[in-house]
Amino acid sequence: MRMVDLIEKKRDGQELTTEEINFIIEGYTRDEIPDYQVSALAMAIFFKDMSERERADLTMAMAHSGDTIDLSAIKGVKVDKHSTGGVGDTTTLVLAPLVAALDIPVAKMSGRGLGHTGGTTDKLESIPGLHVEIGREEFVRLVNEHKIAVVGQSGNLTPADKKLYALRDVTATVNSIPLIASSIMSKKIAAGSDAIVLDVKTGAGAFMKTAEEARELAHAMVSIGNNVGRRTMAVISDMSQPLGAAIGNALEVREAIDTLRGNGPKDLEELCLALGRQMVFLAGKAASLEEAEEKLREAIRSGKALAKFKEFIKSQGGDASIVDDPDKLPTATYRIEVPAKKDGVVASIVADEIGTAAMLLGAGRATKDSEIDLAVGLILNKKIGDKVVAGESLVTIHANRENVDEVIEKIYGNIMISDQAAAPTLIHGIVTE
Amino acid sequence: MRMVDLIEKKRDGQELTTEEINFIIEGYTRDEIPDYQVSALAMAIFFKDMSERERADLTMAMAHSGDTIDLSAIKGVKVDKHSTGGVGDTTTLVLAPLVAALDIPVAKMSGRGLGHTGGTTDKLESIPGLHVEIGREEFVRLVNEHKIAVVGQSGNLTPADKKLYALRDVTATVNSIPLIASSIMSKKIAAGSDAIVLDVKTGAGAFMKTAEEARELAHAMVSIGNNVGRRTMAVISDMSQPLGAAIGNALEVREAIDTLRGNGPKDLEELCLALGRQMVFLAGKAASLEEAEEKLREAIRSGKALAKFKEFIKSQGGDASIVDDPDKLPTATYRIEVPAKKDGVVASIVADEIGTAAMLLGAGRATKDSEIDLAVGLILNKKIGDKVVAGESLVTIHANRENVDEVIEKIYGNIMISDQAAAPTLIHGIVTE
Repeated sequence: MRMVDLIEKKRDGQELTTEEINFIIEGYTRDEIPDYQVSALAMAIFFKDMSERERADLTMAMAHSGDTIDLSAIKGVKVDKHSTGGVGDTTTLVLAPLVAALDIPVAKMSGRGLGHTGGTTDKLESIPGLHVEIGREEFVRLVNEHKIAVVGQSGNLTPADKKLYALRDVTATVNSIPLIASSIMSKKIAAGSDAIVLDVKTGAGAFMKTAEEARELAHAMVSIGNNVGRRTMAVISDMSQPLGAAIGNALEVREAIDTLRGNGPKDLEELCLALGRQMVFLAGKAASLEEAEEKLREAIRSGKALAKFKEFIKSQGGDASIVDDPDKLPTATYRIEVPAKKDGVVASIVADEIGTAAMLLGAGRATKDSEIDLAVGLILNKKIGDKVVAGESLVTIHANRENVDEVIEKIYGNIMISDQAAAPTLIHGIVTE
Repeated sequence: MRMVDLIEKKRDGQELTTEEINFIIEGYTRDEIPDYQVSALAMAIFFKDMSERERADLTMAMAHSGDTIDLSAIKGVKVDKHSTGGVGDTTTLVLAPLVAALDIPVAKMSGRGLGHTGGTTDKLESIPGLHVEIGREEFVRLVNEHKIAVVGQSGNLTPADKKLYALRDVTATVNSIPLIASSIMSKKIAAGSDAIVLDVKTGAGAFMKTAEEARELAHAMVSIGNNVGRRTMAVISDMSQPLGAAIGNALEVREAIDTLRGNGPKDLEELCLALGRQMVFLAGKAASLEEAEEKLREAIRSGKALAKFKEFIKSQGGDASIVDDPDKLPTATYRIEVPAKKDGVVASIVADEIGTAAMLLGAGRATKDSEIDLAVGLILNKKIGDKVVAGESLVTIHANRENVDEVIEKIYGNIMISDQAAAPTLIHGIVTE
């Protein structure tokens, strides 16, 4: 088999066989097939797409290019949740204990954040004492005992995807549905869960700018999952503005606690329930999505979800008293209000730019090796559609330095006030096949 | 400027500016832009094409990526001829003295052959004593004095094209009209001629399988030439069978001599006249193509063309007596006839396979470093449309070894005899704009 013939085949719109896709991914992983052939293939895929079978094959080839996680020692149906990336997305912090409270095993492998997208590991480490560096056996033991554990990413997962992603990034081949879908799904499959719930973001702050594109990506990923024997569902959710109010690590932990108490921002709660009911349904703990949602609401009302969060914190060495006394979380020295300059209605909050503003405070990493400040961040006091009076605070900046002019400027440049505007639809749809 | 943005621009069907194309070619030549970005760009060009302006810019950027030849010290309009490559193509050997006989300067830079396509340098070196390793000054002097000289390729011509061609070869991006056209034209322009005549081959033995594809390529090259100030014309000629009768170095020199005497194969003569009349016209030595052709025919009839060939051979150290006594050329030990197995009409002669048969005898190079045997080769005794009787010789093999079973087998496998067939049209058209 020669790579040049396979590039030509795809270039001419033909389907690659399973064997051919395995040849490509195995050869590329072992550095036997050079970047320049793979980038030409990626561009051919950009133009000629891949069939559902090819997408599934590519996903599995990448999933098996390195280590895979074996969760079979964990009892029950393991359901993983994945978000395509947004700003101020506290859903994992809420969902993990909420779902675990219904006796569904949550075996979460989580990474650190890069750029304006926060990582769950960073957020959790703002809880004093909590650590995620635990061994594989301990991880399994914790999930079996508490139904919940979060471990930092380790091992050599999907090296083919890492290489291919880095190559696509510099060859203008990122924006291809089959390549995006197989990249995400390969990581989820290597991570070992039985079923997958996807939160596909759409809007100005997301990679998929329109609901139509997001739906196409969601469908692609759900198809792959179902074709490779992992039941998969997706929610298309709005990222035209940041989710919830908090952006920043400790601030988002506080927001998660509020939400588990039933006092969180309405959009965050709504999205957690939309994702959570799919997780509960796929775990086989409810006969319908409606029944699943009712069980989740009951877990919040009864306090079981909050209790599970405390249990989880304690089991991983953390100080669970922060749940009842959140002031024990890292707290910034300065709180600076950003007042509205005129009366009106908030018409837009540019999510990624607001995320970048939080990163400038130290809440996110500009590069892989940046140190982050767990205490700092932003609280949005107004969301799109909210009325505002001149002088009223739009945003509260939590900072550990006095001069935040650059951040204030970025906030003003990215929150527009006009005469009228309506709150955006949060859930654009669900995709189940 | 970032290469990834330029790939994206082309991917999305936009035109690259002159500055952007220069950035790409200069960066690639200096190894500052990696292969994997250029191969992705090449694939994007495959799908999205290039405008006439982009093609001209790419051609000039590659022409200027290395040395360029300055022929300004040669008096008169220098017209170069280029063939897209065929089997048994003796046109250069005929045209160079034929055109020079009309006082048109022929300053020919020529390479060695690779694979089944013979190189003019190899063919000429079958003339005892003749050498093509001459310095730049001597070359100019010879052309000014004799109107004809052939020099071996030297210097670092179009290194960007060499790199890009090697990359395209392994990334399934060879077959792209803008890339093929700019590759050929960049070499011709770097070689310094004022006007260019192109012989674009079509048919089973050529890269362009159909006359339509060949016409598209011819138009692309003629446009580039005219857009960059080099008057350019093209002939679309048939390569569904080898041109003329001889395939092999010394055998083709004999055939060229016959043709310069007016006794050559009709198809070879016809194509030489079609190309030659464009060369004469572009050199300004005739007011019309018809007048140009008449002058060429007169040069053959009068013996001026043959005399010019002798003059050329002598001027480059060769033994001109071979013209009147071709048996002084290298001659093979064995002549083996390949008889027809049945009565009928020759219906097909697969040009590239027949070329490969000659290469197996030693007439061509399998790799760059192969030694070639100047004496060996094939003479086609029958061409498509010729009647043949069982036992009559189809091909005469000129070999320096007795066992040529493999060659005979290849010949039988690639000359089909059927009930009826007509000779193919030789000239499929001319392209002047």
